[in-house]
Amino acid sequence: MIDLARHNAGFCRDHFLRFCRDQVAKAIDEHAMLEPGERVLVAVSGGKDSLACWDLLRALGYEADGLYLGLGIGEYSDESGAFARAYASERGLRLTEIDLRAHHGFDVPTAAAVTHRVPCSACGISKRHLFDAAARDGGYDVVATGHNLDDEAAVLFGNVLRWDTEYLARQRPVLPARPGFPRKVKPLVRLTEREMAAYCVLSGIDYIVEECPMAVGNKHLAYKDALNAIEAMSPGAKAAFYAGFLARAADRFAVEGGGPTEELVACPSCGAPTTGEVCAFCRIVERSAGHEPVAVRATRRGRRRS
Amino acid sequence: MIDLARHNAGFCRDHFLRFCRDQVAKAIDEHAMLEPGERVLVAVSGGKDSLACWDLLRALGYEADGLYLGLGIGEYSDESGAFARAYASERGLRLTEIDLRAHHGFDVPTAAAVTHRVPCSACGISKRHLFDAAARDGGYDVVATGHNLDDEAAVLFGNVLRWDTEYLARQRPVLPARPGFPRKVKPLVRLTEREMAAYCVLSGIDYIVEECPMAVGNKHLAYKDALNAIEAMSPGAKAAFYAGFLARAADRFAVEGGGPTEELVACPSCGAPTTGEVCAFCRIVERSAGHEPVAVRATRRGRRRS
Repeated sequence: MIDLARHNAGFCRDHFLRFCRDQVAKAIDEHAMLEPGERVLVAVSGGKDSLACWDLLRALGYEADGLYLGLGIGEYSDESGAFARAYASERGLRLTEIDLRAHHGFDVPTAAAVTHRVPCSACGISKRHLFDAAARDGGYDVVATGHNLDDEAAVLFGNVLRWDTEYLARQRPVLPARPGFPRKVKPLVRLTEREMAAYCVLSGIDYIVEECPMAVGNKHLAYKDALNAIEAMSPGAKAAFYAGFLARAADRFAVEGGGPTEELVACPSCGAPTTGEVCAFCRIVERSAGHEPVAVRATRRGRRRS
Repeated sequence: MIDLARHNAGFCRDHFLRFCRDQVAKAIDEHAMLEPGERVLVAVSGGKDSLACWDLLRALGYEADGLYLGLGIGEYSDESGAFARAYASERGLRLTEIDLRAHHGFDVPTAAAVTHRVPCSACGISKRHLFDAAARDGGYDVVATGHNLDDEAAVLFGNVLRWDTEYLARQRPVLPARPGFPRKVKPLVRLTEREMAAYCVLSGIDYIVEECPMAVGNKHLAYKDALNAIEAMSPGAKAAFYAGFLARAADRFAVEGGGPTEELVACPSCGAPTTGEVCAFCRIVERSAGHEPVAVRATRRGRRRS
């Protein structure tokens, strides 16, 4: 059913699904992501990776609920929400939903326009803030995200191209808990995008196939393309790049991450832990307040951030 | 005459040539490559980079002679040798020539076939050995090679993809002298392939345009392609990748390079310093001895080395 060049092996349906479960179990074990009995909150987007992540964690026996954020990115958000809801309801799972516009008075396109920053910036800040808050409020030990090997390798490639030593110091499949912040884990780091698409198809999971329209043309996708060209020439190169970084390089950048930790105080607006002043999420809420929703438009191509 | 996106500038002929000289002067200064009065031996292949390197060093007032190796790679070697000879004779410069077949009884295609390794392996060993020996015998302080920014960035990319910490520890634009080995410098690390082609055209330097036929399809060229795609999206990314490595990462890998240095003894066959036994070059000479020349053939595409 599926041929994996990097493993020099072909799989039938059942063995492929077992292969995926084994890879997730191995990642969890290898990086001490989860302990038995911990409650996991899965960040669900309606795409193949987050739904497969949820599915695989439950298949491995973990107690995992989902959280879906309505980002207000036009039809993309409408459709992705429908896929997330359908997955949960068909399986009788608990899916919490938070709608940025309904609950916080803004959406990603509007926040991007108001803050004059790329949409991925407001989107990332909102996701981090709301997943952290939901985990605290719901008593979850861990937030799990569907970042796969292609995602992590592409982020690593970007960080290496700039030799961004702070980001390199933090790029791990597990981000330990800090006071007020749950642990963050990426159980799919040993599995590729293509493998996750195959997992969903073979498991009967329907997902939104389109990429986020606001991310089209961004550098992350260009980094993926570059690594895919290398992978086509040398199967296994992508996995070796990511695993080699963790094994032989990550610690060399870790010094900076071990510096004095900033003291956290409660955000005067929402109460979330922050390094002082109003937290980044509440600043977006404030700046977006009262603005009419902005229409979704494709990201400016080739934009440059310093 | 030439537009450089990464510098966001256009140049006329004279200013472009000055720009190239300034970049070489800056690289020499920044990395302490050369002292005034030192004698430089330039590794000349007949290609744009090595001829431009020789030309630029002389334009900056350095005493630089050339050394050309006849590698026996069919028409490619015949033609590249003719370009090297023409450059030197038209300018009254000293060019030494060593022919692998005539002087050492083998050529690169034959050595590759006999050793069952990729041709770039025997070629690299031969170049290092013969340039070191020629520098010792000729009383040169330094060997200069024409590696440009594209070359160094592609090698760095390959080393990073594998997180080859030993190679990362050694990848510098200057390799200090060791007993028996001259200093090695790469004066073109601030200039790109395209800039070196333009330099030759605008300076009236004729060079062999073809790539080495044995290198076609190798990984190095695929790494260049990948970085060129990134550069097209983000002008300056390639230079930032290489400069950022030297500034913020190289030292983090240097520990391994500072370990106990192996003791060198004289090769019993040729007298060159080696870590013991017969040196790598003399082993190729021995194994190739008496073999009929092998015809040049294109490199196996997509070959894999462990």
